[in-house]
Amino acid sequence: MTDSGCIFCRIASGEIDSDRVYDGERVVAFRDLDPKAPTHILVIPRAHVPSVADLEDGDAPVIGELLLAARDIAREEGLVESGYRLVLNSGAGAGQSVFHLHLHLLGGRQFGWPPG
Amino acid sequence: MTDSGCIFCRIASGEIDSDRVYDGERVVAFRDLDPKAPTHILVIPRAHVPSVADLEDGDAPVIGELLLAARDIAREEGLVESGYRLVLNSGAGAGQSVFHLHLHLLGGRQFGWPPG
Repeated sequence: MTDSGCIFCRIASGEIDSDRVYDGERVVAFRDLDPKAPTHILVIPRAHVPSVADLEDGDAPVIGELLLAARDIAREEGLVESGYRLVLNSGAGAGQSVFHLHLHLLGGRQFGWPPG
Repeated sequence: MTDSGCIFCRIASGEIDSDRVYDGERVVAFRDLDPKAPTHILVIPRAHVPSVADLEDGDAPVIGELLLAARDIAREEGLVESGYRLVLNSGAGAGQSVFHLHLHLLGGRQFGWPPG
């Protein structure tokens, strides 16, 4: 199911252009327009899920593809040796600004701790 | 499969005590000893997987349970309204210090961007 008012649904369907780096069965990925690292990619489900809090018990296949896509993209981007950080913000208070679940994949620089 | 030299394998098996908050089929969760937020919990697979880069194509069930456990724990901790951040560091360069895959669940405060 998609939501025609959702920008990430429209990116997933191809209605809005993006710098696509992954096209999977349940998941697509594209470069963040406001990158916070040399590599900053968003991995999203094709189906509209607002946030982690809205995932359903049957969603293991899409969650699995989300993480495995991130693993594969990191490999293709040459980030395995240097390391990379994956971040999911759930809710506005955690910094989520688009309410279509998205996994941030960041790499190519050092990362501090705590993570924001 | 577990690794007897791995501290998180020993926490998962119960050989080392922890402040356990979740006990699932493939996943357990416990409070971080060096918390970076009012709520800071680590969600880990029972099986030894060093990092995201080492996940295998058949690992969707464990990845699914990892995220769904985080969703459930966040709900129990009362974090859904205020929001929470999930972080996976893959590799020392990204800040990974224990090489048994672990998902950080942080909540109960505001979070900055970028995430470290």
